[in-house]
Amino acid sequence: MTGIDILNGGFVRLDDHMADDLSVVNSARVSFGKKTDHLTDADRGLINFLMREHHGTPFEHNSFRFHVKVPIFVAREWFRHRAGWSYNEYSGRYSEMPEHYYIPDFGNVRTQVGKPGSYTFEPIPIAEAMDVSETIDMINGHAFRTYNYLLAKGVAKELARTILPVGAYTEFYATCNARSLMHFVALRNDTNAQYEIRVAAEAVENIFGTIMPVTHAAFIENGRVAP
Amino acid sequence: MTGIDILNGGFVRLDDHMADDLSVVNSARVSFGKKTDHLTDADRGLINFLMREHHGTPFEHNSFRFHVKVPIFVAREWFRHRAGWSYNEYSGRYSEMPEHYYIPDFGNVRTQVGKPGSYTFEPIPIAEAMDVSETIDMINGHAFRTYNYLLAKGVAKELARTILPVGAYTEFYATCNARSLMHFVALRNDTNAQYEIRVAAEAVENIFGTIMPVTHAAFIENGRVAP
Amino acid sequence: MTGIDILNGGFVRLDDHMADDLSVVNSARVSFGKKTDHLTDADRGLINFLMREHHGTPFEHNSFRFHVKVPIFVAREWFRHRAGWSYNEYSGRYSEMPEHYYIPDFGNVRTQVGKPGSYTFEPIPIAEAMDVSETIDMINGHAFRTYNYLLAKGVAKELARTILPVGAYTEFYATCNARSLMHFVALRNDTNAQYEIRVAAEAVENIFGTIMPVTHAAFIENGRVAP
Amino acid sequence: MTGIDILNGGFVRLDDHMADDLSVVNSARVSFGKKTDHLTDADRGLINFLMREHHGTPFEHNSFRFHVKVPIFVAREWFRHRAGWSYNEYSGRYSEMPEHYYIPDFGNVRTQVGKPGSYTFEPIPIAEAMDVSETIDMINGHAFRTYNYLLAKGVAKELARTILPVGAYTEFYATCNARSLMHFVALRNDTNAQYEIRVAAEAVENIFGTIMPVTHAAFIENGRVAP
Repeated sequence: MTGIDILNGGFVRLDDHMADDLSVVNSARVSFGKKTDHLTDADRGLINFLMREHHGTPFEHNSFRFHVKVPIFVAREWFRHRAGWSYNEYSGRYSEMPEHYYIPDFGNVRTQVGKPGSYTFEPIPIAEAMDVSETIDMINGHAFRTYNYLLAKGVAKELARTILPVGAYTEFYATCNARSLMHFVALRNDTNAQYEIRVAAEAVENIFGTIMPVTHAAFIENGRVAP
Repeated sequence: MTGIDILNGGFVRLDDHMADDLSVVNSARVSFGKKTDHLTDADRGLINFLMREHHGTPFEHNSFRFHVKVPIFVAREWFRHRAGWSYNEYSGRYSEMPEHYYIPDFGNVRTQVGKPGSYTFEPIPIAEAMDVSETIDMINGHAFRTYNYLLAKGVAKELARTILPVGAYTEFYATCNARSLMHFVALRNDTNAQYEIRVAAEAVENIFGTIMPVTHAAFIENGRVAP
Repeated sequence: MTGIDILNGGFVRLDDHMADDLSVVNSARVSFGKKTDHLTDADRGLINFLMREHHGTPFEHNSFRFHVKVPIFVAREWFRHRAGWSYNEYSGRYSEMPEHYYIPDFGNVRTQVGKPGSYTFEPIPIAEAMDVSETIDMINGHAFRTYNYLLAKGVAKELARTILPVGAYTEFYATCNARSLMHFVALRNDTNAQYEIRVAAEAVENIFGTIMPVTHAAFIENGRVAP
Repeated sequence: MTGIDILNGGFVRLDDHMADDLSVVNSARVSFGKKTDHLTDADRGLINFLMREHHGTPFEHNSFRFHVKVPIFVAREWFRHRAGWSYNEYSGRYSEMPEHYYIPDFGNVRTQVGKPGSYTFEPIPIAEAMDVSETIDMINGHAFRTYNYLLAKGVAKELARTILPVGAYTEFYATCNARSLMHFVALRNDTNAQYEIRVAAEAVENIFGTIMPVTHAAFIENGRVAP
């Protein structure tokens, strides 16, 4: 499977997986000492039952390894997911940070309306949005030029990087199972999530839905609440 | 891969996996923004370095799903491993427990010598050992017959099972990654571990060594300490 | 706080804690850079909001250490809770198991009605129930006598214990936070849970409700779904 | 306990704790069905034995809640510790980021010598170091002024913050137990760790040593390897 491009130069790519709907059924059926090799209608019902009743463990016996490139502020939110997630990230201590930072498309330059707990977002008029995008581009470009200046002076990478913006892109491997994936997607592919992590979570969910379609359908049918 | 038979009717069977030595290298190398598709000598050195320096996360981007049948007292010790392990077990609440319990071979009937912290075990003379095995067989058989008597009287399975011995066999799926697998193996395939879990851990380690031979060799070379 | 007696000789005892409702509020408010030293009506609203919106992390900055004595089959279900739980248990490898096993009160001898997924339980007529309790007492007593016989012959404790029933009592320390506690209580103090773990979970919930009453009220108000 | 000031305006402050050396001993002794109320020489030996033999669970029945203020790049490394750690962080989505960023003292402006895996760091000559500090101050100040400009134009906080440097300060609550604390300290209060997280980890270790002195001494005696 090729990757899904997001956020102007970022991506979510499935690197490998060991996952299908059948693994849920067989893990659950070990309770009854049974195993099956193809999915029946009764199995579909079982998956839906497990989801609805919050029986989460049968959804853990599978694995998705993603290779992801997103801005640091997106990675920061992603890495808050601890249970059932493993991470390895590009290191600004060991390697030079390439000049790549997030500039929102005009349509995604937004203002915040309402109060904490019930914020909504509205686009900013196009002329203003253009100025905002340019300002973001300019200040981030300035930060990277200063970073390169510090490196040229011999400053250690680990120290020079401290001036880089959280909008700079980072890369990582993230490995999870269907249960931890659904917890991530329930929170992050949601109207309350920041747009930039939402598109990443949407890509994760699309890949998940392709590989475990029955489980994904049950997730949606039960209100997108992870089991 | 077929299963490994252990403990007179138990087994450890690899049900599926997403694992190879290359996944360790690529997960680690994302720190440097590099990826490779075959293992070089430098990669072998890297795996050894990661193991020695306790850089554990690159060993988490893989997955092993085992189907296991062992006595309950072995499962009890196994399930104490929480981090990086997922379990689904046969349920004595929902299903009848088949009459199957652990009887040690004569050679494994043992006595305990020494003090806490430094116990050793010695075989019991053969005549005694035969009596012990027969006694174990008899009392466990008695427990199962009583269990069946209670079921026949209509007692709920969840209540009737409370008289079954911890030597009764159970079945479960256990999914882990190489890091959590090595933690398990370091503690349980060890002279301080009880013989019965040790043979199970040895089977797990043999399967692991076949699938990730370079990682396994580095684990041994670094004193069998999990990273 | 003294312990709560359950299951004829078992108990749930709070050994120590670092927990109050205020810790939830202050952990959440760090998002806004604020701290408070007493609970206001707005704080109560915040706790309810966090529970409803499944913002779970503010409920993790506290700790409950329990000392528990229950039958092994109850401990087995309890120990399936991995995230946010720590355990240390009495060891039948190192120490002799005292003769103490679970005998259900007559009123709790039950039969199972219905199908998997929708079982209900009904009491068994009293005369039958007496016979069942006596049978359970007899076979378990027999197991313990045989256990003592094996120990007297010099059989290692770790091997002799394999014949003891899962109804034998064990002891452990269990440490958790309010979030992991609520996950336990949501599943185990529930009509679908086995009666014997339900009374243990009820004791845990009673202690929790005394120490974090506002959080507990919000848990109930939001349908007993852990955040 | 008051906080420990670090990194020019950051701090590590113990907010609350439920921890002492006795909790380790009593958790371990439940294996033998014993409990004690003061620490004996035998208990000190037991703690050392548990540390040496990697018996980690007795070190989990306690809790430390820290309130921490450090630059984002330090928080990023800290939050990689998942097992046994809970976090709540100041949110740049909900609240304005105050103008506060990390400027290294002249003595900590450093260059990197050697190769990956064996880097060492050396101070940069004072005149150069002054220029570096000033450059860092200038570019970060510029980023914060631009941030305020964007906010003034009505840009959403969550978007405006993307230009802020990873050297900007953040605040969080972090709750852990002695075992997870030792894993953090073993990796982060170490010569291989970046200076800025090292001083934070040193503060954590000092607080830990005050509260659990016998456990801390055993940690040091056994080569600073977490159990």
